[in-house]
Formats: sequence, structure tokens, C-alpha cells
Amino acid sequence: MLTNTIHRGRQSILFADPPSILSYASVVGKKESQGPLGNSFDLSIQDGHFGQESWEKAESHLQRTSLKLALQKAALEEEDLDAVLLGDLLNQCIGSSFSMLGKNIPTLGLYGACSTMAESLLLGAMSVSGGFCRRIAALTSSHFASSERQYRFPLGYGGQRCPTAQWTVTGSGAVILGKEEKGPYIRSATVGCIVDSGITDANNMGAAMAPAACDTLCAHFRDLNCSPDDYDLIVTGDLGSLGSQALRDLMDAEGIPLGKNYRDCGVMIFDCKKQDVHCGGSGCGCSAVVLCGHLLGQIQRRKLNRLLFCGTGALLSPVSVQQGESIPGVCHAVSISSDRE
Amino acid sequence: MLTNTIHRGRQSILFADPPSILSYASVVGKKESQGPLGNSFDLSIQDGHFGQESWEKAESHLQRTSLKLALQKAALEEEDLDAVLLGDLLNQCIGSSFSMLGKNIPTLGLYGACSTMAESLLLGAMSVSGGFCRRIAALTSSHFASSERQYRFPLGYGGQRCPTAQWTVTGSGAVILGKEEKGPYIRSATVGCIVDSGITDANNMGAAMAPAACDTLCAHFRDLNCSPDDYDLIVTGDLGSLGSQALRDLMDAEGIPLGKNYRDCGVMIFDCKKQDVHCGGSGCGCSAVVLCGHLLGQIQRRKLNRLLFCGTGALLSPVSVQQGESIPGVCHAVSISSDRE
Repeated sequence: MLTNTIHRGRQSILFADPPSILSYASVVGKKESQGPLGNSFDLSIQDGHFGQESWEKAESHLQRTSLKLALQKAALEEEDLDAVLLGDLLNQCIGSSFSMLGKNIPTLGLYGACSTMAESLLLGAMSVSGGFCRRIAALTSSHFASSERQYRFPLGYGGQRCPTAQWTVTGSGAVILGKEEKGPYIRSATVGCIVDSGITDANNMGAAMAPAACDTLCAHFRDLNCSPDDYDLIVTGDLGSLGSQALRDLMDAEGIPLGKNYRDCGVMIFDCKKQDVHCGGSGCGCSAVVLCGHLLGQIQRRKLNRLLFCGTGALLSPVSVQQGESIPGVCHAVSISSDRE
Repeated sequence: MLTNTIHRGRQSILFADPPSILSYASVVGKKESQGPLGNSFDLSIQDGHFGQESWEKAESHLQRTSLKLALQKAALEEEDLDAVLLGDLLNQCIGSSFSMLGKNIPTLGLYGACSTMAESLLLGAMSVSGGFCRRIAALTSSHFASSERQYRFPLGYGGQRCPTAQWTVTGSGAVILGKEEKGPYIRSATVGCIVDSGITDANNMGAAMAPAACDTLCAHFRDLNCSPDDYDLIVTGDLGSLGSQALRDLMDAEGIPLGKNYRDCGVMIFDCKKQDVHCGGSGCGCSAVVLCGHLLGQIQRRKLNRLLFCGTGALLSPVSVQQGESIPGVCHAVSISSDRE
């Protein structure tokens, strides 16, 4: 019998006592509801302000809504959560801080850029599997308009988008983890290193993140002695069409080619051409809503059994870009299975 | 014999297998080296740029230096770390992302504002005690000049400071945690909730954070069935002189008065009057360097045996302040003891 002390290799953990995904929920905006995965989300809200007076408040509202839905599905109350692990893309993560106002839920803030959903699942799985928390929520969001204002231009400026650009997903995903014996389960996780490939173009984040995704995938397969074939599906967060092709090329060069079972959430969520989103979706919310809508739905319906979910983050700020710095990437991976073993 | 499954009350954890603090290090700037704790830091650097070309790069350099010193003291290499848990105050935590460039250390980014040192110790302690990581580093920093530019004005503007203002500490602290049986140990931890007391003055962050500190202290004493007298010293991160008095008043009202064994790192680090810092120090680096200089030094020399270290964070951004939002606070607590029991 394995104990919890099964750090395998330096970066990876195989959970001897895998935490259960008790429930999950996704909330998206109008554009996401019109994409190929539109039917998989729990709720879509057609007004981008969600009845709030600022984009930032709208983003907090998204988080509160997805958490509420996830709790409802598991027939749990906020008081049943021992912690929420959450983060977003806004400066000082205000989308997350303000979403938890008045909630009385122990709160641990994370910053992993668009890798946040994977990071919160990874740390949440440790806290539950280790017996430190009974139930936790992993929560994240992004909002197209709050991101555009902060990273690029306010929407009213009508800035031009270049062909390598991606479209920040408006959405929030929430997962509740607990100790119950009820699939799906989080089976293993790999913590990523920060990888800098020297990309300085803030409109080409897929390229900036692909080397980090490659680094983490290689570590995962090495540490856990497995291969891409051991998964029904491997997804990255938001490399987009260019970045996911770059990842395929990098993995080919490593001798671990990715086959048809590799896809990217940023490519899946939009019809890139029809919806005019160039290279696809991005943002913390992108991989979060694809996981908490389509992917976990597929696992629950047993259309998927073993999923490797790789959150990918581009670690830039407007200040670092203006100072001419390159854009480092990070990728954290968690594997999710229908069964405990 | 206790197992790891000793979540006590909803917010607190008593570690059955308490992780060991293998080493720690602190690096500060000139002003901090001239304060009352000046002799307790490992290194002070007189040039605020630390030989770098921007304040942000200087902050990353601080982190790299404190981590390097902490590893050296424990006779460890970077490769011996299974993870670093880190964060800072800059937008998108670029101080932390860029400090890890080229390091090949699995990296988990956090955002807890000035509570980051406590949050990283708390999550790091879970990861080590739970057997998920063998050794981790908890790391944070702040820099007066990068913070002034981002939150207030560039230094060159010579902005006026009001009497309630605090001075962002230039410094970085690093702690290495492991499973070894060698004190000091992290014995327990309390995860804080976000508390909003309606303060909207970004120059009065002590007042904004005091209610969160009160909330977490009450949870800690309640969950773990202990009292302030059980500690030789209770410190808060950076409430400053006004905020720490506000905390005393709040705790009096709760019927759990804090006595002479309560102090605030923001008050300890500077001679507030002589050094013209108004209400004291602040920033992620404030509590981090006081912990990794003075406090852990006192524990190692057995002048202190039981310390309750409460990191306090004000969750604001310039955007939220400009939108008229209040400033929520958060506080995470970890108790550190010379002995395992």
C-alpha cells in the first residue's frame, strides 16, 4: 500500500489517497456560449457587465456564481469549505479578493497566470489528500474586458489585433475537492519550473508558453514513468493554434511525440475563424471553463477515463514588457481519472 | 499518536508531523540596515538598485540573494528543493517570476499581498508534512521604489506622505522547510478569511488589516483551544503603530486582550520617528525579513520558544482604490516552536 509519501521524481506527486472531485461548475460570457463547447457550460450570461458597474466587479461576480453553482451541485454550503484556493489575472488578483468579500471562507490566493486552475487543483489536492482540509474549492476566472484594459488598451480604443493574438475568455470555473470515495479523482500532479524561451512579443503568448508546457510534460512522463498513450486526452490550457503546434514540434524533438489525443483548450473553446479570435482563447478562465464544462462532463459520462490537464501561464506584466523583458512561461499538470487506480 | 488528519476547527491545522525550518536568510536595503534590527539581517546592500537596471529587477535580485544564502546555510543546492512557494506585491508578481528564471526549481506562485510569507510557510508546511515535497523554500520580497512607482507615484515626483502612511520595506526573506528532526518547527497554522471593514483610504492600510488579524487570531485561539499566554511572542506582519493599536482594541472587545507579548514587525523594523517612516514598515518583505532575521535568530538562540507569526495583507490595487472600493484584509498565522511538541 502506498502512503502519501510518494513524491515521484522531483516534480511529481502520485496521490496514494486521491482526492475526489465532488462537483464542478462553469459560467461564461456570450461569445463563449456561441462557441463549439457552448452547450457544455452551466450558465452563460449575455451582458458582459453581469449587472455590475465595472468589468472588475463583473469578474468577481463570475467567480461567485461558478462557486455557488458548484456548491449547489454537491449540496454543500460555503461553511462546508475549509479553504478556497483561487486567483486571476488582474493586478493584485482583485477579481479573486473581491469575490470572497463577506463570505467567511478561509482563502489562499494564488498567482499562476493562466495556469491558475491547474495550480489550485494541485495545491488543493495536496491539502485534501494530506488530511489538512476536508473540502476545498479551486476557483479562477478571466474577463475579456478587464484583461484588455489592463494588459492592452481599454476596449473603447478599438485597438487592432495581430494574427498571433488570442482572445481572453470571459468565464469562471470552480471545482470542489473532498475525501469522499466518488470519482472522478485527482491521481497525480506535476509542478512546473519557470521556463524562458526569450519571446518578447506580448501578442504571441502561445509561443512563450509552449516551452514550459514541453518541460512539464517531459517531467511528468519521466517522473511517473508513463507516456502520452497512457492518457485518453492531454490538454494544455491556452497555447492557441500556433502555440499548440509549437508544443507538438518541441515534443517531437524530445522524442515524445503527441498524437491525436492532444488538444488545447484555447483552440477548443472558439471556432477561431468564424468567431474572429485569431489563435484562440486565453486567460485563466479558458482552461477552467473547458475543464469545468466539457472535459469533466466527458469524464462523468465515461467518454473519457484518463485526462492530463496542463495549465499554462505566461508570466508577464505590462511593466516587464515595456522594460523589454522576455515572457517566461510556467505549466502545472494534474491527471484526472474516473477511477481511483 | 496524532495523524496528519488533524484539521482542528475549520481554519486551523495542527501538524502531527511538524516540518522543520532547516535554514533561513534575510537581505535588506540601506534604511532597514540602519533600523533597530539592523544587526539581525544576513546582508544589507547599500545601493537600492543592487546593480540592476530597474527597481523590478532589483527586487528579483533580492529574492535570488536571500534564497542563495538560505540554501548555503543549509548546505543545500537549488536541485535539493522540490518546490519554491513565492510571491510579491508587483503586478503579476513579476518580482517572483523573474527571480526564478533559469533556476529549474518547481515554482508555485502565490498572491497574499503582505501576508505572503505566512501563506508560503503554511502551504509549504502542508506540502512537506503531507509527504508531497521533501524540501521547499518559502520566499518573498518587497522593494520601496518598485512599490512606490506602482501603488503611489514614481519616487522622482517627491509625493507627500500622510501621517498614517507606512514605508515599504526593501528586503527579502527565505525559509527552507524539510522533514528533518531539527528545530525550529512549524507546529500549527490558521488560514485566514478575507475581512472587509470598509476602509477606503489607501494610506491607512494598518486600519484596513487589523480586523482581518483579529479574525484570524480569534480563529486560531478557538480552533486550537489556546490563548495569547501560550506564546512567548505574537507578531503581526505590518499593521504599523496605528494598526497594531487598532488590533489591541479589537482583541480587547473580543475578550482576548493581547499583552506585552504582542508586537508588530512594521513597528519593530524601523525607529519610526528618527527614520521618518510615520506608522512603520510594510510590504511582503517587512514580516519576511523580521522573521528571517531577528525572530528565527531569537528562537535559535532559545530566547524565544513559541512564536505566533501572523502575516497581514491589504488586498487592494490602484484600480480598486480608484473605483472607490474598500480595502479588504487577510491574515494567515503559523506557529513556530523550538521543539516538536
